[in-house]
Amino acid sequence: MIYLDNSATTKPFPEVIDSFVTVATKYFGNPSSLHELGRKAERLLIQSREQVAALLDVKPNEIIFTSGGTEANNFAIKGVAFQYRQRGNHIITTAIEHPSVAEPCRQLEELGFEVTYLPVNENGVIDVEELARALRNDTILVSVMHVNNEVGSIQPIEQIGRLLQQYPKTFFHVDHVQGIGKVPLDLKKAHVDLCTMSAHKFHGLRGAGILYVRNGIRLSPLLAGGGQELQLRSGTENVAAIVAMTKALRMSLEAYERQSSRLLAIKEQWLNELKNIADIHINTPLDHSAPHIINFSLNGLKSEVFVHELAKQQIFVSTTSACSSKKRAPSKTLVAMGVEQKQAESSIRISLSYENTLEEIPVAIRAIKAAIKKLQEVTR
Amino acid sequence: MIYLDNSATTKPFPEVIDSFVTVATKYFGNPSSLHELGRKAERLLIQSREQVAALLDVKPNEIIFTSGGTEANNFAIKGVAFQYRQRGNHIITTAIEHPSVAEPCRQLEELGFEVTYLPVNENGVIDVEELARALRNDTILVSVMHVNNEVGSIQPIEQIGRLLQQYPKTFFHVDHVQGIGKVPLDLKKAHVDLCTMSAHKFHGLRGAGILYVRNGIRLSPLLAGGGQELQLRSGTENVAAIVAMTKALRMSLEAYERQSSRLLAIKEQWLNELKNIADIHINTPLDHSAPHIINFSLNGLKSEVFVHELAKQQIFVSTTSACSSKKRAPSKTLVAMGVEQKQAESSIRISLSYENTLEEIPVAIRAIKAAIKKLQEVTR
Repeated sequence: MIYLDNSATTKPFPEVIDSFVTVATKYFGNPSSLHELGRKAERLLIQSREQVAALLDVKPNEIIFTSGGTEANNFAIKGVAFQYRQRGNHIITTAIEHPSVAEPCRQLEELGFEVTYLPVNENGVIDVEELARALRNDTILVSVMHVNNEVGSIQPIEQIGRLLQQYPKTFFHVDHVQGIGKVPLDLKKAHVDLCTMSAHKFHGLRGAGILYVRNGIRLSPLLAGGGQELQLRSGTENVAAIVAMTKALRMSLEAYERQSSRLLAIKEQWLNELKNIADIHINTPLDHSAPHIINFSLNGLKSEVFVHELAKQQIFVSTTSACSSKKRAPSKTLVAMGVEQKQAESSIRISLSYENTLEEIPVAIRAIKAAIKKLQEVTR
Repeated sequence: MIYLDNSATTKPFPEVIDSFVTVATKYFGNPSSLHELGRKAERLLIQSREQVAALLDVKPNEIIFTSGGTEANNFAIKGVAFQYRQRGNHIITTAIEHPSVAEPCRQLEELGFEVTYLPVNENGVIDVEELARALRNDTILVSVMHVNNEVGSIQPIEQIGRLLQQYPKTFFHVDHVQGIGKVPLDLKKAHVDLCTMSAHKFHGLRGAGILYVRNGIRLSPLLAGGGQELQLRSGTENVAAIVAMTKALRMSLEAYERQSSRLLAIKEQWLNELKNIADIHINTPLDHSAPHIINFSLNGLKSEVFVHELAKQQIFVSTTSACSSKKRAPSKTLVAMGVEQKQAESSIRISLSYENTLEEIPVAIRAIKAAIKKLQEVTR
């Protein structure tokens, strides 16, 4: 199997599953319970929060555990909107956000909020000066993703953070789901107020995510109830998945330290090989894009059929983001980049992790060439 | 270990953990991915939805998987409120709901909704006639729990459902978290529109819950995004936890079939023994209460110290609901039942599962008597 769909989900590390099983079996107590069984679970939760905070270089009470990236994005956006609606009702985001940012914004529009969607250039990057012009007195939130999930473009988060320093009433949320462990982001240096991460994108298990909430920011709870997670996110804590995520985060950041240049070399090799295929056009910007995402178009061939053709060889790629792939609409990031409709409709995304190797490339490239040939023959 | 805190959380069945590990390891694909790995995960998800629907005697497209009970309760209440706010802004609930129902209602009050909190009688049960009088033309939702988590009282869900048949514009939500597998509830017969369940209360794993949404009801998504779960609940599906929950649900309902009378006999034996202890007052209504929850008061002794004293003997009980236990406020259900403050403050909850045995009772009773004696000596 050559798994090239890591931006959809990653294979959990075996050590991460082991941690989950140990906690779920031996430390199954409710962390809110007063007795020893609850205390043990609570200690694991406290340790996890401390470790995650240390890994992200923030404070433990700035880490809120959620059920995943979608919840964290919804919570950040709706949490700010409902908490600070007296202050203003304007939100700025981009045209290329993940649906878990775009949809909450759309819902807020229905509730009377106003949302500005910044365009991107041909490299899939917003213009910070355009953001500066969009800022208003009643702008309560700017939400910009770090690494785009469809093409791997990187937004100028630090530059935006510096700009927003002049707007203390405007909070800055970053969807870091595709960036963590792949493209470094210093939350403090970039003056990020709220930041989303998801365990299953870095070899953790589903059911756990992180919302970083800078000290001093209040959020209206999305999941209200028993008051867990510093009164911000209720529900019995999924300690097993949180402990597992903490291990996955540590391992992924270690992998970055040791292997980021290897990952970049794999991407370069992929690009070199793909560029040599006549019917392929690379959509991912060649300069300054993430080391793990390559988006290319198949010159009008049907990308869904291509995905199935490669899957026959146990090579797994994607047409676009997983959650959009069944809608059969072209990648909205490619459309926003000005990529022509036909090209956008025939796009393929390869997304890597540190588990991928250089050795896979010739095998996959042979299969890609064969699949293109076959589809061309069928189409003719 | 004698674990008597099953209403806080249950020990996951080993078979359930095995299922989780198998799915997380072998079927880790994103169910939205088009390729084989995604399809396999999607098939497991479809099967789980069909099995859960069959177990609950409803349709598969009426089952929405959530991250747990708190999310399901928040989603039901806020989902109706935001979707139907043009129709009305009045909600009816009870004074004894779990915080994951009470808090969303309070949040909605802040947003301009009006909420009626029905009182309960000395048995912890609401009066359906009082509910009937509270109903208004602009009542969009009635939310009543099935089995109370603190004392085990059972609300007249079928009677409420029949009443609400005359109010087709008012939806009926039931928090069934403590009832499932212990006290039967026929969703169709009781005319329930929305119903919450949580995996970790029936030996499943945290990270999965169920919201039953009757066909024809629209909900404003709480977690908006990629459009998973029939466009109602976005986020990459936690297939491993959902498959595990499905198994836990089947096993729990089978346990009910085989062992409900055994569980009732255990409860009766507990009550007989507890009634013989002079300093104990039983708060749980003796007639028509759940077979797994017994709440009693310690005649002014500090319940938290008592919990720790029993924990020294590896006997785990609770002062109140887990999520309220650290707030040191008396049980709100007991207060609503008119139990005197001092008695409410010294309350202890025992909550059973099918894993408990008659043999545990004499051991636990000896420890309870010893703990009472010790605390009385310390207090004197």
